Amino acid sequence: MATKDRLILVCNDDGIFAKGIQALIEVASDFGKVEVIAPDRQQSAVGHSITIMDPLRATRFELKNGMVGTAVNGTPADCVKLAHDQLLDRKPDLVLSGINHGSNAGINLIYSGTVSAATEGTILGYPSVAVSCTDFDENADMSGCQEAAAKAIQFIFNNGLPKGITLNINAPSGPLKGLKWTRQGDSKYVDEYEPRVDPHSRPYYWMTGRFQVLDHGEELDINVLKEGYGSITPIQYDLTAHKVFGEMSKMEL
Amino acid sequence: MATKDRLILVCNDDGIFAKGIQALIEVASDFGKVEVIAPDRQQSAVGHSITIMDPLRATRFELKNGMVGTAVNGTPADCVKLAHDQLLDRKPDLVLSGINHGSNAGINLIYSGTVSAATEGTILGYPSVAVSCTDFDENADMSGCQEAAAKAIQFIFNNGLPKGITLNINAPSGPLKGLKWTRQGDSKYVDEYEPRVDPHSRPYYWMTGRFQVLDHGEELDINVLKEGYGSITPIQYDLTAHKVFGEMSKMEL
Repeated sequence: MATKDRLILVCNDDGIFAKGIQALIEVASDFGKVEVIAPDRQQSAVGHSITIMDPLRATRFELKNGMVGTAVNGTPADCVKLAHDQLLDRKPDLVLSGINHGSNAGINLIYSGTVSAATEGTILGYPSVAVSCTDFDENADMSGCQEAAAKAIQFIFNNGLPKGITLNINAPSGPLKGLKWTRQGDSKYVDEYEPRVDPHSRPYYWMTGRFQVLDHGEELDINVLKEGYGSITPIQYDLTAHKVFGEMSKMEL
Repeated sequence: MATKDRLILVCNDDGIFAKGIQALIEVASDFGKVEVIAPDRQQSAVGHSITIMDPLRATRFELKNGMVGTAVNGTPADCVKLAHDQLLDRKPDLVLSGINHGSNAGINLIYSGTVSAATEGTILGYPSVAVSCTDFDENADMSGCQEAAAKAIQFIFNNGLPKGITLNINAPSGPLKGLKWTRQGDSKYVDEYEPRVDPHSRPYYWMTGRFQVLDHGEELDINVLKEGYGSITPIQYDLTAHKVFGEMSKMEL
């Protein structure tokens, strides 16, 4: 398919005004016509949250690069669902989400709105990619992440993607040292909350927490990133624990 | 361990005042001392959302059955994290989430706050179970779901659970016809939004949608439920697509 005939949907979870989505729009523009449909505000760590109890609104407006975008008062997954069902004139050839300001490797993947937008794209039948920069700095150099995203997009247009598979990319800031296939590394957060007392003597808690690696296997996203490379993990949304299912399903309940 | 020495954490996503959590507290009480720490309001479909940008508050109060509970102004995953890190005097022996008013089988599992509370329990190292009733009726007869939950709890105290595994239970309302081991059935929602126009002539969208089964394999949660049985699925939070990883990781990027 010629570049001019491709439609690429771009979403994120940091909101339509984040710098990261601009960086992803730049990459996407090299591969097709871009439609930006993203949350109207910061939606980090909303996971695969969707809006059931409130109506959604979609507001079209011009982005600073002259491109037209649509801001939705919902989550990343809402944006992709609404784009698919109502807002797009035709089905997109690709769904991109990001570039997230912060890592979505290891356990972060579970909490990530960025990844969920891409997973939702996969559920709806589109090749989908999530892209995250491990550097939280708003002004981080995302050139390496952009290069990794371009490689993944080219990979998809060359090879397609197996059914039900989403690509999850993470890369450090700065130039790309290389991009490696990885698995999601087991990890968790510890010491998660800082208790404080408000001016009215009432307690409250801020989320904080240290990231703890629990996994020492090879080809892990968290390890490859530590070595300065970008990571690309094929992920899927079937949560069945197939590894133990055969054995467990023989046990009496 | 004697029943009186066990501590069981109960959470949900319909909020601490929902009828379903009362039904689960009843079951839990047969197996140990119960601590209820749950969202202060309805949090359906929040997925694995966590609260990063706002402080959390935890309010202790008496539930109608005389039990003391704690309401948190956060998501189901927040509740379990905060319970683990700050609110509980000691580590629980079991984390239960539910009973949800509505199915968490098939693709619903991805969007479910109920399941995410249990998954969070697993991430933190506790045996964890999510329980959902496929009947949305607030006054649904949850006796079968309670029986299924009791079977799963007894199973865990007899056999333990493999590392990283959460049990996801669904059952119809009414008496339990039986409980079967299942896999998560592939499915999605179609025709998801109903567009409307507000009194000021501005468009908005309500989520609606039909559940569509995409999977015809055996031992699927959605099929077993259709036959009137309860389903129990061992799930895990590693999203790596292990089935395709070997092949994909040899392909050039």
